[in-house]
Amino acid sequence: MSRILGIDPGSRVTGYGLIDGDAGRPVLVAHGCIRQPDGEPFPERLARIFAEVGAVIKTHDPAEMAIEDVFVSRNAASALKLGQARGAAICAGAAVGLPVAEYTPAKVKQALVGRGAADKRQVAHMVGMLLGVREPLQADAADALAVAICHLHHRQTAERRPARARAS
Amino acid sequence: MSRILGIDPGSRVTGYGLIDGDAGRPVLVAHGCIRQPDGEPFPERLARIFAEVGAVIKTHDPAEMAIEDVFVSRNAASALKLGQARGAAICAGAAVGLPVAEYTPAKVKQALVGRGAADKRQVAHMVGMLLGVREPLQADAADALAVAICHLHHRQTAERRPARARAS
Repeated sequence: MSRILGIDPGSRVTGYGLIDGDAGRPVLVAHGCIRQPDGEPFPERLARIFAEVGAVIKTHDPAEMAIEDVFVSRNAASALKLGQARGAAICAGAAVGLPVAEYTPAKVKQALVGRGAADKRQVAHMVGMLLGVREPLQADAADALAVAICHLHHRQTAERRPARARAS
Repeated sequence: MSRILGIDPGSRVTGYGLIDGDAGRPVLVAHGCIRQPDGEPFPERLARIFAEVGAVIKTHDPAEMAIEDVFVSRNAASALKLGQARGAAICAGAAVGLPVAEYTPAKVKQALVGRGAADKRQVAHMVGMLLGVREPLQADAADALAVAICHLHHRQTAERRPARARAS
């Protein structure tokens, strides 16, 4: 059994999602959001992300972590804030020796929907379908689960590759 | 005695500097740089910053941490990288419960040189003068020491304020 923690970082809301994956379909373990109270100083926000992601890791003991390689479409000030939130989340994993994999949004969409240009609702829909969740998922938690599923998919593909090479 | 760790974060080089400060002049404890090997994956860079800043904290046991509130003049992609490095450094302090103070570059310059528009060489020069360092300081270490000195200055001012208020 290998458990994957997916993270969707943000300076206001950080989504997380955990799945178990072996040969077959991924199984939902837990998901949720780390929300920041308004008006808190930025270092305290980062400390909160670090501590809360650390607590999620301690509770659920994942073997690996996957995070979206954020797409920078906004201005430099937003990118700086997002970068810090992402750095805090990655450090929570790195602090306990978790390997951290990064995927571009296009790769995550490709893995979930089969094409890189899918919209966010399609991704959330596929996450719900794959994990058998009937109620609507909170958007950041859905994105976090999507990157975890993407990582599982890529790892399974990588594991199959040597066998194929031998067969050919 | 209160020891301050100053940090100048960067995705390629992170400077650090430690000073002791009581009533009088700050005393240099240690300074240095955390350099990233070329071509390392970004999560490993962040893990390195987190681990190395953590090691500096463990070795020198500062009571507080100060970091420059980075000035965003470059593009969003650079800001994102810098943000992540900054987030990793802050988390190393936050992970062991250090309070983290932020100062704008203008405040650091004001504290060191007396005006917010001073250039980097003037700041490095004043750092060397104040700490009695004769050899030229590496630029990132000098910036880290500058923000530590700025924090000491602001804290001392804040400590004097209540006494003044009572006297008036």
